[in-house]
Amino acid sequence: MVTPAGVLPQAAERLDARPEIGADEVRIAVERLNLDAASFRQLAEKHGGDGDKVRAEVLEIIGSRGKMQNPVTGSGGMLIGTVDEVGPDSPLGLKPGDRVATLVSLTLTPLAVTDGLAGWDGRGEQVPCAGHAILFARSVAAVLPDDLDSRLALAVLDVCGAPALTARVVRPGASVAVLGGAGKSGSLSLAAARRSGAARTVGVVPSEAEAALLRDAGLADHVAVADARDPVALAAAVGEPVDVTVVCVDVPGCEHGAILATAAGGTVVFFSMATSFAAAALGAEGLAADVTMLVGNGYVPGHAEYALELVREVPGVRKLFEGRLTL
Amino acid sequence: MVTPAGVLPQAAERLDARPEIGADEVRIAVERLNLDAASFRQLAEKHGGDGDKVRAEVLEIIGSRGKMQNPVTGSGGMLIGTVDEVGPDSPLGLKPGDRVATLVSLTLTPLAVTDGLAGWDGRGEQVPCAGHAILFARSVAAVLPDDLDSRLALAVLDVCGAPALTARVVRPGASVAVLGGAGKSGSLSLAAARRSGAARTVGVVPSEAEAALLRDAGLADHVAVADARDPVALAAAVGEPVDVTVVCVDVPGCEHGAILATAAGGTVVFFSMATSFAAAALGAEGLAADVTMLVGNGYVPGHAEYALELVREVPGVRKLFEGRLTL
Repeated sequence: MVTPAGVLPQAAERLDARPEIGADEVRIAVERLNLDAASFRQLAEKHGGDGDKVRAEVLEIIGSRGKMQNPVTGSGGMLIGTVDEVGPDSPLGLKPGDRVATLVSLTLTPLAVTDGLAGWDGRGEQVPCAGHAILFARSVAAVLPDDLDSRLALAVLDVCGAPALTARVVRPGASVAVLGGAGKSGSLSLAAARRSGAARTVGVVPSEAEAALLRDAGLADHVAVADARDPVALAAAVGEPVDVTVVCVDVPGCEHGAILATAAGGTVVFFSMATSFAAAALGAEGLAADVTMLVGNGYVPGHAEYALELVREVPGVRKLFEGRLTL
Repeated sequence: MVTPAGVLPQAAERLDARPEIGADEVRIAVERLNLDAASFRQLAEKHGGDGDKVRAEVLEIIGSRGKMQNPVTGSGGMLIGTVDEVGPDSPLGLKPGDRVATLVSLTLTPLAVTDGLAGWDGRGEQVPCAGHAILFARSVAAVLPDDLDSRLALAVLDVCGAPALTARVVRPGASVAVLGGAGKSGSLSLAAARRSGAARTVGVVPSEAEAALLRDAGLADHVAVADARDPVALAAAVGEPVDVTVVCVDVPGCEHGAILATAAGGTVVFFSMATSFAAAALGAEGLAADVTMLVGNGYVPGHAEYALELVREVPGVRKLFEGRLTL
């Protein structure tokens, strides 16, 4: 099934993408791939923006690896499609005809393309695509809601682990700082913190422009402008150390600031994929900071439904997302 | 004090190592540096084992940076010495004459050397040294116990965060797996898990030789041999998924196995500095694993005392440590 044997699909060089499914698997008729932003940028830069060459390389990757995983960035993306066949023992609760988005990375989803990506110009992350993908028993897929634009739903589902874990960590009465509070995962996390009963929420953003957006959205009790990579400036911007700090800033070097902004006995949740494990571990030790540091797990049961609910029910979140989609 | 301004000492290029102390600082008369193993190895290999050149480079680093931080590995080490002067507002509870080990990395400890490292041949990690070091208010130092050999105490203090955090995470009745159970942090973590009331402990080791050592030490209910980098083999070796998995294996690629060995709702504690944040975050998401993942914080209040107590009171732990010291 997987090469080399013994490794899990994500670490595998190559997956078996034949269309036949096992008893606990599901086959999806693929409609569109949504390439990871870092992956698309790398490909576009490598080929100097030549869309034909980008398309050829994506086709080559999928053909040779049986999945879409950029060999340089290691990242994949998501896909949407329609459920085609469901094995009798599949635990995913899907039925043929459901229109779904996969919530596990393309890096571990067997995928075959049948149209040569003929409908894609190679110039954007959204890839119209005919072919099939296989979901395992442990995969996760969300049925796309009827009441939301599918681009909006995809953008929300892409980061839905963050609000769910934030909701789990924040206790009623807690103070919460979200670094990158005007972004996708950040705005959802602020809304989740408030819904979980946070007594004080601080949204930290890097610029006055983002501060204006976040103030307008009304998602934080306090909006502060600071460079999250500058620990002293960040701690000053947050003010009194908070019980929970949520890191949603996708730049390296925010670990020390997040630790310093957090009260003794508090928790830092790192959602940014730019987080350095060593910087977090050694930083907390070096600061003698008794904080619990969580690796932001993108999977929390019920995360998709919870994030979609926030977008439906919190106008400020929806406004920020829709503003990004029209950019 | 620090160059560039605004960054914390660990990230700083250069620290101010003048001997004058602030009101909340402490000056230590240094007796010995204990270089980080990775740092010493890099230096020795760079200079082809020429001790004079290694000594010259360490002197140059300390002189130019005001601290011992290997520019290639980024790591430092610890030091031992005697408290020389204590500022009136120091919160560390030290008094002049105390013989102490620093528990924060040398990478953030101002240090000056006055003997040209004349007593060191450049051929080992233990560096006899005259000079001074400065502890900040947020530094951590442990008074060396009278009843333990100082080499043993240093080896224990070097990893004392692991058992303290393990003790905090393990609930009575829990099942616990420790990857690298025969190592320094691993054996202490196994002892801590049992002391916290774990109902079942599994020590995973990479070889039959280590398995024999760990069985002989009697620290785990079950000893399993497996390559922690092979998720399927590791999960099989652990057996029924455990409530808590503690990763003390200092090789990359153990994240997926640790996640797979852990039950839904359980916790993985990553102590290995070889942990990849992205592999942990994407791995859990990809496996749809509802596990809490903790960055192993080297600082937990009371960690030094707790670890020394385990070495004193658990013969199997002491035996493993003393065995390593005589190697």
